Amino acid sequence: MKNTFGNSVSVTLFGESHGVAIGAVIDGLPAGIEVNEDFIAHQLDLRRPVGKISTPRQEADKFTILSGVFNGRTTGTALCVVIPNENTKSKDYASSYGKARPGHADFTAFSKYNGCEDYRGGGHFSGRITAGLVAVGAVAIETLKNKNIHIGTHIKRCAGVEDIEFSDYNKDIDTLSNKVFAVLDGKKAEEMVSAIEKAAANGDSVGGILETVVTGLPVGIGEPWFDSVESMLSHILFSIPAIKGVEFGAGFECADMFGSEMNDNFTYENGVVKTLTNNNGGINGGITNGMPVLFKCAVKPTPSISKEQETVDFIKGENAVLSTKGRHDPCIVHRARVVVDSVTAIVLCDLLSQKFGTDWLGEK
Amino acid sequence: MKNTFGNSVSVTLFGESHGVAIGAVIDGLPAGIEVNEDFIAHQLDLRRPVGKISTPRQEADKFTILSGVFNGRTTGTALCVVIPNENTKSKDYASSYGKARPGHADFTAFSKYNGCEDYRGGGHFSGRITAGLVAVGAVAIETLKNKNIHIGTHIKRCAGVEDIEFSDYNKDIDTLSNKVFAVLDGKKAEEMVSAIEKAAANGDSVGGILETVVTGLPVGIGEPWFDSVESMLSHILFSIPAIKGVEFGAGFECADMFGSEMNDNFTYENGVVKTLTNNNGGINGGITNGMPVLFKCAVKPTPSISKEQETVDFIKGENAVLSTKGRHDPCIVHRARVVVDSVTAIVLCDLLSQKFGTDWLGEK
Amino acid sequence: MKNTFGNSVSVTLFGESHGVAIGAVIDGLPAGIEVNEDFIAHQLDLRRPVGKISTPRQEADKFTILSGVFNGRTTGTALCVVIPNENTKSKDYASSYGKARPGHADFTAFSKYNGCEDYRGGGHFSGRITAGLVAVGAVAIETLKNKNIHIGTHIKRCAGVEDIEFSDYNKDIDTLSNKVFAVLDGKKAEEMVSAIEKAAANGDSVGGILETVVTGLPVGIGEPWFDSVESMLSHILFSIPAIKGVEFGAGFECADMFGSEMNDNFTYENGVVKTLTNNNGGINGGITNGMPVLFKCAVKPTPSISKEQETVDFIKGENAVLSTKGRHDPCIVHRARVVVDSVTAIVLCDLLSQKFGTDWLGEK
Amino acid sequence: MKNTFGNSVSVTLFGESHGVAIGAVIDGLPAGIEVNEDFIAHQLDLRRPVGKISTPRQEADKFTILSGVFNGRTTGTALCVVIPNENTKSKDYASSYGKARPGHADFTAFSKYNGCEDYRGGGHFSGRITAGLVAVGAVAIETLKNKNIHIGTHIKRCAGVEDIEFSDYNKDIDTLSNKVFAVLDGKKAEEMVSAIEKAAANGDSVGGILETVVTGLPVGIGEPWFDSVESMLSHILFSIPAIKGVEFGAGFECADMFGSEMNDNFTYENGVVKTLTNNNGGINGGITNGMPVLFKCAVKPTPSISKEQETVDFIKGENAVLSTKGRHDPCIVHRARVVVDSVTAIVLCDLLSQKFGTDWLGEK
Repeated sequence: MKNTFGNSVSVTLFGESHGVAIGAVIDGLPAGIEVNEDFIAHQLDLRRPVGKISTPRQEADKFTILSGVFNGRTTGTALCVVIPNENTKSKDYASSYGKARPGHADFTAFSKYNGCEDYRGGGHFSGRITAGLVAVGAVAIETLKNKNIHIGTHIKRCAGVEDIEFSDYNKDIDTLSNKVFAVLDGKKAEEMVSAIEKAAANGDSVGGILETVVTGLPVGIGEPWFDSVESMLSHILFSIPAIKGVEFGAGFECADMFGSEMNDNFTYENGVVKTLTNNNGGINGGITNGMPVLFKCAVKPTPSISKEQETVDFIKGENAVLSTKGRHDPCIVHRARVVVDSVTAIVLCDLLSQKFGTDWLGEK
Repeated sequence: MKNTFGNSVSVTLFGESHGVAIGAVIDGLPAGIEVNEDFIAHQLDLRRPVGKISTPRQEADKFTILSGVFNGRTTGTALCVVIPNENTKSKDYASSYGKARPGHADFTAFSKYNGCEDYRGGGHFSGRITAGLVAVGAVAIETLKNKNIHIGTHIKRCAGVEDIEFSDYNKDIDTLSNKVFAVLDGKKAEEMVSAIEKAAANGDSVGGILETVVTGLPVGIGEPWFDSVESMLSHILFSIPAIKGVEFGAGFECADMFGSEMNDNFTYENGVVKTLTNNNGGINGGITNGMPVLFKCAVKPTPSISKEQETVDFIKGENAVLSTKGRHDPCIVHRARVVVDSVTAIVLCDLLSQKFGTDWLGEK
Repeated sequence: MKNTFGNSVSVTLFGESHGVAIGAVIDGLPAGIEVNEDFIAHQLDLRRPVGKISTPRQEADKFTILSGVFNGRTTGTALCVVIPNENTKSKDYASSYGKARPGHADFTAFSKYNGCEDYRGGGHFSGRITAGLVAVGAVAIETLKNKNIHIGTHIKRCAGVEDIEFSDYNKDIDTLSNKVFAVLDGKKAEEMVSAIEKAAANGDSVGGILETVVTGLPVGIGEPWFDSVESMLSHILFSIPAIKGVEFGAGFECADMFGSEMNDNFTYENGVVKTLTNNNGGINGGITNGMPVLFKCAVKPTPSISKEQETVDFIKGENAVLSTKGRHDPCIVHRARVVVDSVTAIVLCDLLSQKFGTDWLGEK
Repeated sequence: MKNTFGNSVSVTLFGESHGVAIGAVIDGLPAGIEVNEDFIAHQLDLRRPVGKISTPRQEADKFTILSGVFNGRTTGTALCVVIPNENTKSKDYASSYGKARPGHADFTAFSKYNGCEDYRGGGHFSGRITAGLVAVGAVAIETLKNKNIHIGTHIKRCAGVEDIEFSDYNKDIDTLSNKVFAVLDGKKAEEMVSAIEKAAANGDSVGGILETVVTGLPVGIGEPWFDSVESMLSHILFSIPAIKGVEFGAGFECADMFGSEMNDNFTYENGVVKTLTNNNGGINGGITNGMPVLFKCAVKPTPSISKEQETVDFIKGENAVLSTKGRHDPCIVHRARVVVDSVTAIVLCDLLSQKFGTDWLGEK
């Protein structure tokens, strides 16, 4: 289903970059979850552009919860958050309509919607739409925290610079939760920012890899067919603009491993089943095995660059040259981070509700 | 939804490795598609184990179409294919129940289904269940051929050996369609088989990477949220046992690319919009752009190995040592290939039907 | 799925009677449909309370289209309409919380949502929520008109008074489209209003039956299992508060008919297949047969009455007496009419899209 | 979605009347439910034709459980039941193809499936397909019994004869469970059978009304939008061939009631909230209120009659006269009864799982 995803817990997304407002509806969350508006604002801030390495478009992201919250707690009915679009310089886009920006959806949107698409700022394809996911995802994240389930994502690699490995998952998750540029090693962060600024100065952009960990998940979540944990997560992750790869545990590295290396041997630790390694990313047969769930997303370099590019003008029906002077991010890896956390939380609330019921998820 | 996936075209899967039968239902295909039973048998043969590099379990995979076909053509109603399980040595498994095979779903299935799972041969988690997908997927593949849409997958990498690149997509697809071991370069194929046999002799197993191309897709298929082509494909691909990574176009390599390298510039070629490169894998904003769709799947090494492994016995509640002497494949990369083609065809039929309607897909 | 319904075209609903706003998202409509805001306002006006026979709560129902419309036409992406709640006298309700109003969802909402429900004015269960359906349904109605498909509903029976039969479907639909109190026979309308006012004066309320006709549907829409036209329509119709019965064609009368009376004989009329009677309501085997689709909905008398009623106080855990002095409608049959038209249009857009594709529905 | 219905618990249906086999897959039931094959056979027997008042087609309805059951208990994975078609006299139908039987789906199936439908015996539209629903529904009924939830249906009205009212729900359910002709009053049953036989002798058929009660449901099941208990039940009930009306509680009678009559006043009975009447059929705002759920279905007279009928030959494109000499039932009301029980059980398992989780439904 198009703008709606999920079964027991679902999310519906709407809005265009330069329309009246964007927003999202999350449905199926249990009643009684405390909704902390400051936390929603905090999460939205993590998604907002920062400093030199982001677009100068600075919006307050003032959101309004239209429904689903009463006396500070979820009611159990559909929760809608709306974020008005304020700083929209639409004229930047009108004149260039028809010139397909390489790597963007201009041409495919035009083709799919028969020329009726709202093309301003990428319209419904804009990364801005993810703010709705972040807003309602914040409530999903809070719901999971109640059950002692925690999610954290760091920039594993960006502009050719590699971050250090996770060392203590829950501590690292805590550290990352307040970092705008979510790198574990501060020095690596500086190197990445330098590399991004260098690319920006060159009119270019860079990509990277996000690595996510989820702790505290009970054993037995997910389905063998077709709603494996991998399937459900990848479905929503690949909806995030710029994500071109998703892998769990060892991921593509497993192609060169022997079975004896890849297999995660089991052992009892204080009466609880654990694995000695975690190459399968906490998932066996599509189902959580009680180990941390681990996955990585490849984020492509922002397609908006200042460098001159060859392209077509699909209105005029001729080849063209594109020289974008609008505002854009030389890197969105750090901004995508909180989107990944948000959609992960939504999917996990869904899978947990299916096994244990809506009521369980709301119990403390 | 659990054992059902898809919207306009959906597939439902059932069966256990050592139960009475396995099977699948495909629903939503147009009426009037010729159903070639020989082609279904051919596809099932591609999935079956071959020679030394596969399990000695040799089943005929005799299938019966129970419904949805009349006078050799699809009726437009649910098409069910059933494949009886014949060569089932269940006793191999009963005695070892409780000893979780590392990398397998024994422990998670036990946890999820409260000890009621059919544990024989992996039960509902067995790779054998994919035969149902291959059988109904064959009809989806034929449906697409009617619209001049073609799918092909080769073993890009296996046991450390790399195949050559695609050169001529449609010609390569044709060549691959009859290869049991789907490698473009015959010499590389031999090297891979040698490496697999070497691992097998060592009681071990190997993994690999499958690369798939789809040609002939019209522009405009897929959705920005949440049913992007990447989302829908990855959802069903990650249901295939052993798949731990999925990437489109340049995939994870994009992390180290500049925007100016990653962007696929557009150009008119005989009045048709093309891209000069295809790093985005034929997909912009989740929607097909008319270029070939390209993706890769990481297939982990078969978890069943002869080498002794440490594990737990979750029935006895104690640590244990596992030494599997049953039949198993040292590599399943080549067998997974046709499963990838099959689920790809099912998803594409779904996405095409949504845009153009069920009737369109059936027209010649 | 909870607050979302539909496949190729779906609707998502949110809001509470006394919250910030209510609204709806419609998704999957084709791009390029002209959106007439006056028509949306007109439809909302038909749903609003009128004169003495309705609640004095008079809200402007000022709506805002947040997304999915650009240059006056649908973009093909999710279209969200929001209607702020303005005239909310919440204090009317706070003091009486716990006293379950008979016929209302107070007690079931309390039980389902563990006491976290927004109880003000019925919260998410309020008839007011249907305004969202009417707003987005207006766009669905316009979409169908483009394809020459028309929907009309009259009050077949109310407060014991029976309207005349449809005589000329398309003419009647046209006439009804501007009537606030949708009765074909003006004299019968007056009788109904008198009877309603009499009940109101007595502190009581009345119910009725709505009869709907849809003309212009092509043959072949709907599914045998499980998405028959009857199934899809009844699903959404039974979501409308107060609807307690749905029947197609002869409906419950068929129980006393012989097969030879009930069967609709076929005949060719100018080369087109027609039926001589229409006891099956234009549907055979769940699929449209080209005749007008006909169905009726039973609307129960408004549960809010001024008469004293016995009930429980589920907060105090004791029996109680309820004497409601708040504002309420002695009849909602006439207001439910436009809701029935709206959801019917949404479901038909969905079923048409599935057969013919999203693009077809947008073509003129 | 077409041949699949349900969320947490879903059912998929396949098969044609004269194809190889029919069957159904139920998915999402908890693991550990004892599967009693005798009970399945018993339920199928209740659906089979009996004596003079049914078609002489007598099939054993020998079913095979292909999957989802291990050691006599559900595994928690997809449970598929297949029933071969044995006594198929296909030649009866081939010669008359093109002559649309009034009241049947011959013409609509032809139109929808572009002439590729399996027309033999009604194909996928045949009442025979409901045997699959009955088989898997039997497991759903057993699942509910474990939670002390019971379902019973009687023939409230048939051929103009009315049965007595329910007196003691659970006792009546028990009595009905073994009756092939499910009428509470034996004398009324005889009168109905006489009336049916009289119609049959006259080459005609009769319809009727089924009334269903469900006891033991907890408070709080169902959703306000769009998956109300009424919505979910009516959706699947209207898939049953011949059902043309569904009403809950007082149903259509509510149209002539005052609010003060229709409202069900609440009261505490031994500390539990009850209603003094049950005109709302145990459902307020789409959600169970703890009272028995009550609904009625209108079953049209069997469209297959011996009397000569006018119709069209859609192959020849001309008017025609139909004189059916094949075997058919003069009444299917009694046979539809067990189908109603079965689909009711499936839907309730779904709604219960959503609130309480899959695990809860399996607990004793």
